[in-house]
Amino acid sequence: MADNKNIEETNAFSPKFDANGLITAIAQDARTGQILMVAYMNQEALQQTIKTGVATYYSRSRKKLWKKGEQSGHIQKVQQIFVDCDQDCIVLKVSVDAGQCHVGYQSCFYRALKPGGENELEFVAEKVYDPKKTYSDKG
Amino acid sequence: MADNKNIEETNAFSPKFDANGLITAIAQDARTGQILMVAYMNQEALQQTIKTGVATYYSRSRKKLWKKGEQSGHIQKVQQIFVDCDQDCIVLKVSVDAGQCHVGYQSCFYRALKPGGENELEFVAEKVYDPKKTYSDKG
Repeated sequence: MADNKNIEETNAFSPKFDANGLITAIAQDARTGQILMVAYMNQEALQQTIKTGVATYYSRSRKKLWKKGEQSGHIQKVQQIFVDCDQDCIVLKVSVDAGQCHVGYQSCFYRALKPGGENELEFVAEKVYDPKKTYSDKG
Repeated sequence: MADNKNIEETNAFSPKFDANGLITAIAQDARTGQILMVAYMNQEALQQTIKTGVATYYSRSRKKLWKKGEQSGHIQKVQQIFVDCDQDCIVLKVSVDAGQCHVGYQSCFYRALKPGGENELEFVAEKVYDPKKTYSDKG
């Protein structure tokens, strides 16, 4: 949270990309408010997202643009794009079908820390699709 | 999203800190689902958050632990801690009072991209407190 009033109080969109040229992007279900996933965008991914209305990220592992759902079909239709006070993070409110996480859950956040402990997780969601069927023959 | 089943399908909490020893942490209002802010935690901040039940981050600018609300009083009581599939991002479901962003809004995400454009933001929230009064004499 920078002190810069020109960034915080302005209506000029000036996303702040980090040293690797990336900005954090959170996809949130526009209907339910559930946080679905967190990924990264470079400038091109952000521009493409704005232009097409479909969420496109930058895959750090594959080092290329990644239109969410290009393989699984589980795309994200962007309803609104929010930016935070210091403009180094973006929230996309998206419309989605069932199954946004490649593991098979609706959200990537399908586990929570077990109350009272600090090392053990509990699964707090059920899988909504079978990722083996979705990803199996698409190599 | 790593392929590692040991990380994705396990109930062992093994948060993945980046090269700077940090993990992204999103604070979400447990009651409304609103995304309030995005910050970072080092291992100590995460441990302190778990131990105390009050959100503590690592300030990259001040290079020290930062108990959210230590200056403003707007603390975050942690209800639940979620981790994503590849365990490199955390969501805190928190109970909060009015005014979580230092600019004066409830959420840091008080602006959204104006529909149809790509450079202009619109303010989509009203300030809920006067930050000048909160931060003025606390140096």
